[in-house]
Amino acid sequence: MGDLNVRMALLLEYDGTNYAGWQRQNNGLAIQQVLEEAIEKLTGERTLTHASGRTDAGVHALGQVVHFDTQSRIPPHKFSLAVNTVLPEDIRVICSVAAKEDFHARFDAMGKTYRYAVCNSASGRAVGRQYCAHVPKALDVEHMQQAAQAFLGAHDFNAFMAQGSPVKSTVRRVYESCVYKQEDMIYFEVAANGFLYNMVRIMAGTLLCVGLGKMRPEHVASLLHGNRREYAGYTAKAKGLTLLRLDYGEKSPFQAGGEGKNSEHTCIDG
Amino acid sequence: MGDLNVRMALLLEYDGTNYAGWQRQNNGLAIQQVLEEAIEKLTGERTLTHASGRTDAGVHALGQVVHFDTQSRIPPHKFSLAVNTVLPEDIRVICSVAAKEDFHARFDAMGKTYRYAVCNSASGRAVGRQYCAHVPKALDVEHMQQAAQAFLGAHDFNAFMAQGSPVKSTVRRVYESCVYKQEDMIYFEVAANGFLYNMVRIMAGTLLCVGLGKMRPEHVASLLHGNRREYAGYTAKAKGLTLLRLDYGEKSPFQAGGEGKNSEHTCIDG
Repeated sequence: MGDLNVRMALLLEYDGTNYAGWQRQNNGLAIQQVLEEAIEKLTGERTLTHASGRTDAGVHALGQVVHFDTQSRIPPHKFSLAVNTVLPEDIRVICSVAAKEDFHARFDAMGKTYRYAVCNSASGRAVGRQYCAHVPKALDVEHMQQAAQAFLGAHDFNAFMAQGSPVKSTVRRVYESCVYKQEDMIYFEVAANGFLYNMVRIMAGTLLCVGLGKMRPEHVASLLHGNRREYAGYTAKAKGLTLLRLDYGEKSPFQAGGEGKNSEHTCIDG
Repeated sequence: MGDLNVRMALLLEYDGTNYAGWQRQNNGLAIQQVLEEAIEKLTGERTLTHASGRTDAGVHALGQVVHFDTQSRIPPHKFSLAVNTVLPEDIRVICSVAAKEDFHARFDAMGKTYRYAVCNSASGRAVGRQYCAHVPKALDVEHMQQAAQAFLGAHDFNAFMAQGSPVKSTVRRVYESCVYKQEDMIYFEVAANGFLYNMVRIMAGTLLCVGLGKMRPEHVASLLHGNRREYAGYTAKAKGLTLLRLDYGEKSPFQAGGEGKNSEHTCIDG
């Protein structure tokens, strides 16, 4: 390790309300662009940041993971503090560590957990309205819970992918899928080894159809055999979706004990 | 009751971020003004709305209570749905009921509960940043809990009132005062028979001084004998404060069983 290059891994939180999603693009301000500009301001380096995956416009993250290479002499575990001083308030680096030189935020990800939030009251909410969809009609939570069980396991989720998305396989393995209620909020939490484009939002929209009595809960299982998109429910609003955390198993740069070559800092919870 | 007049009571939630507080004023848009304009749009009536009390610019409410008189023929329990269609998303009427004709949102209030929220992590938070203050240095929660106990009971809170506020008495009775931690958030919840101007924010600022080790927890009790303002801590930021609920005892227009003369609807939790 003769050079000064460090592969930096960041644990990133953002409020997606005012952004055109993670990925840098011509139409609208992306989180990637804002982060890369902040890094350049801090280090003078033009960097390319790699996230665990894109998030759509309006989608939030509590535990997005990003890596990039830097020759900056800022100590890795202090990088988060430094970059937060130049980032806007709606993007925060929770934690920064030096990762192994071959760590890759996207390719090393073994799993990902999302949460979809719905306010299920007549009036909706003012406080926190940015982070949930609003469904005024009373939802049948038990039916939604029953339907959410069907997602568990390896299935062909073709019906739960936005049309025209080019992918090799539409099979994904879901290892957590549950619906729970807290006061007037209903949450759908789902973890999988990967997600197709719009997959969580279509799963959430389908569960909402079930909750509204427009689809029988037992019907959901029949949609998991590579069916066409139009058989599943609608694509639920982006603002209800939050990327909660990534799972890298033993490759996690943030674990206690630190897999990173220079890890001086551990990050618990995203 | 020969006339059509109805005294309407509203349970109101708002995100105070974009408002100059509850009370109508010349400098900036107040929640009262927006609500009264929405009522006028809906009913054609110019009304004067009365809240349980003012909230400062930037302060939020989950359970503000407001009353006004109307001759509208909209059924009281459906008024909330109707007015929400003309209100902006950051102000929601959770519930509307016909109250007794002499119900008064301010004068009938027996108690009020506020919550102050602080994010106590190095980075702060992006998601929900509108609803909490940020203190990066680690706070001593046990010392804050110990100090919060001192507020309980009837005391002269003169040191906890913004200077120049005209009031008859600076004695208030605090019947709930606690500090608790949830992940990286620290909450101070306080209920009293009434609050002086800026009282909760100065209490919160004083507890933060204690948490930062700038004031001994046992010192707080000595500030509750009508001391001068400068002996207490600073005034914590408005955005961390939320009015949680009002207590009207048996006079509550929202109670199950309904004290209101035409109550067809009950509202549980704000």
